Amino acid sequence: MSNDRFLRALRREPVDCTPVWIMRQAGRYLPEYRATRERAGSFVNLCKTPELACEVTLQPIARFPLDAAILFSDILTIPDAMGLGLSVNEGEGPRLARPVRTRADIEKLGVPDPEGELRYVMDAVRLIRRELHDRVPLIGFAGSPWTLACYMIEGAGSSSFSRPKALAWDDPQTMHKLLDVVARAVARYLAAQAAAGAQALMVFDTWGGLLPPDLFREFSLRYMTQIAQMLQSDNVARHVPLVLFSKGANSHLEALADSGCAALGLDWTISLGEARARVGSRVALQGNVDPGVLLASPDAIRAEVKKALDSFGAHPGHVFNLGHGITPDVNPDNLALLVHAVHEFSARGA
Amino acid sequence: MSNDRFLRALRREPVDCTPVWIMRQAGRYLPEYRATRERAGSFVNLCKTPELACEVTLQPIARFPLDAAILFSDILTIPDAMGLGLSVNEGEGPRLARPVRTRADIEKLGVPDPEGELRYVMDAVRLIRRELHDRVPLIGFAGSPWTLACYMIEGAGSSSFSRPKALAWDDPQTMHKLLDVVARAVARYLAAQAAAGAQALMVFDTWGGLLPPDLFREFSLRYMTQIAQMLQSDNVARHVPLVLFSKGANSHLEALADSGCAALGLDWTISLGEARARVGSRVALQGNVDPGVLLASPDAIRAEVKKALDSFGAHPGHVFNLGHGITPDVNPDNLALLVHAVHEFSARGA
Repeated sequence: MSNDRFLRALRREPVDCTPVWIMRQAGRYLPEYRATRERAGSFVNLCKTPELACEVTLQPIARFPLDAAILFSDILTIPDAMGLGLSVNEGEGPRLARPVRTRADIEKLGVPDPEGELRYVMDAVRLIRRELHDRVPLIGFAGSPWTLACYMIEGAGSSSFSRPKALAWDDPQTMHKLLDVVARAVARYLAAQAAAGAQALMVFDTWGGLLPPDLFREFSLRYMTQIAQMLQSDNVARHVPLVLFSKGANSHLEALADSGCAALGLDWTISLGEARARVGSRVALQGNVDPGVLLASPDAIRAEVKKALDSFGAHPGHVFNLGHGITPDVNPDNLALLVHAVHEFSARGA
Repeated sequence: MSNDRFLRALRREPVDCTPVWIMRQAGRYLPEYRATRERAGSFVNLCKTPELACEVTLQPIARFPLDAAILFSDILTIPDAMGLGLSVNEGEGPRLARPVRTRADIEKLGVPDPEGELRYVMDAVRLIRRELHDRVPLIGFAGSPWTLACYMIEGAGSSSFSRPKALAWDDPQTMHKLLDVVARAVARYLAAQAAAGAQALMVFDTWGGLLPPDLFREFSLRYMTQIAQMLQSDNVARHVPLVLFSKGANSHLEALADSGCAALGLDWTISLGEARARVGSRVALQGNVDPGVLLASPDAIRAEVKKALDSFGAHPGHVFNLGHGITPDVNPDNLALLVHAVHEFSARGA
């Protein structure tokens, strides 16, 4: 591996400078991404064609000195493979044609075969690893069971996800049945990504933060912990660091750090210093500059990078990132500036 | 006052049972609200016609044994009175026709006269007080300076409010200039509501929680504290309890409790017990059941009410509410059930 800063930071080992990658780094803010997306015809087709997924995965690596690549895919590949019928209209967000609403719907769900219905994802992982030539590590990922269940029940995005919440309150047994099958599917999918060559794994719990604290523990955290445990019992995946990112769930950091993961992703609403004070050196931390800063001036971007690095301090175990995905309206030059600033300000000397 | 439970709880005095009111209790979930809204022609006209604002304010009081009424109005009355041109299309949210984007725009803004451009609000307060006949206290309210600035700069709602954030990073002086004039406008407006008869005042900081912690302190908390201080120097308003509600800002509860307010509103992502452990008995707490529970079964609603009451415990200083506004899809019978459950489960005996 010519650049292993990212993996070293996840293991909380010393690094020459702080590694950085960016959530949605292969995304609509890049003109070359928009061109490939156009050629693909649809977002889902882009995900399902390994050559195209590989192409967009590598685009930000070619443009910026990023320290990790992340598989281009979507968290809803699993519900799609379960038969729910995924489509994504840009601007509108994802839709599942056949949401699950009843116990009977849920009882019909099976764990998809990662080398069967989801083989296109594993093929993409293998192809990207080949094309990366070990320049930087490759991150695989999945959605958290709670987040996937939100979409599977609602059938689309929502500001409140009141349907999945109502099921959790009204029929917790049925909700647990759904989360159990989804957690097993996620663990199997992540283990297969590791076997196919992913060198780190990430779970995105985008909607856990919408839950009251007791429901968060029962319906979100519990299943992420279960996934961490299942991966620990897999011969390949046990050696692959796992990053959990529960957006808006900063009040649960200590519990998340005890889940068995290697690192926690952080959104921008907590300082890295406070997060580190709370979780200690049990886990590495990944984050967490407000993505909005990339719409501000170069001086403001550099100042926010400096502030985040200073807030974390000179300990091992920091992976620089935004606190959420980069937005389509960002000028790529601003990201270049941010990546350079991270390396420059954190350089530990020769 | 035939029912002063709400004011007693805000003063942290003993009560016969826990008072309850609901954010957006005069809202679209009520068929009688929808009828009045229809007659008004537009949402803005409903706000600007004291007789109609009074009518919808009283509708939930007639239907449920609520312990407080809240003025029917909108947080954007102040930007509208500053000349920004408010319109609200239901389903789309509010729009300001003339957003402020430059220093010159901001320098033109003045503090509106509450008995001038905003007289319709004061007339509504006076009329509602008359029609309430002291059955329950009346709450007046305003948006926080940061939240109003978000709309004033963006011109509409947004998921990220990147324009106001960019201004805060790039030109903090100009942002402070805007927040200063808005804070003076809010303080004057709230003091006038108190003079017109409002018996409690609330500040809604809907978008403070979108800020990184240092920006929250500098651009949101600071101006709410300033408002609390300005109200303390007003002969009428100093006797009127002030409630601050910063959605999504639970990591700042201690600082919010030190702002000079009487009570904090809480969203549903923290338990009342934890919040109380952190702020002690410095302030009363208002909240905080997940609004989504009103779409669940009667048993689930009653269980969540019980859980919230138990979590707060048998201390004085709790005002029951949801953690955010009631949604249009709620069956009013479910709210009736919740209100009854609050009173029943919290009754302190004869």
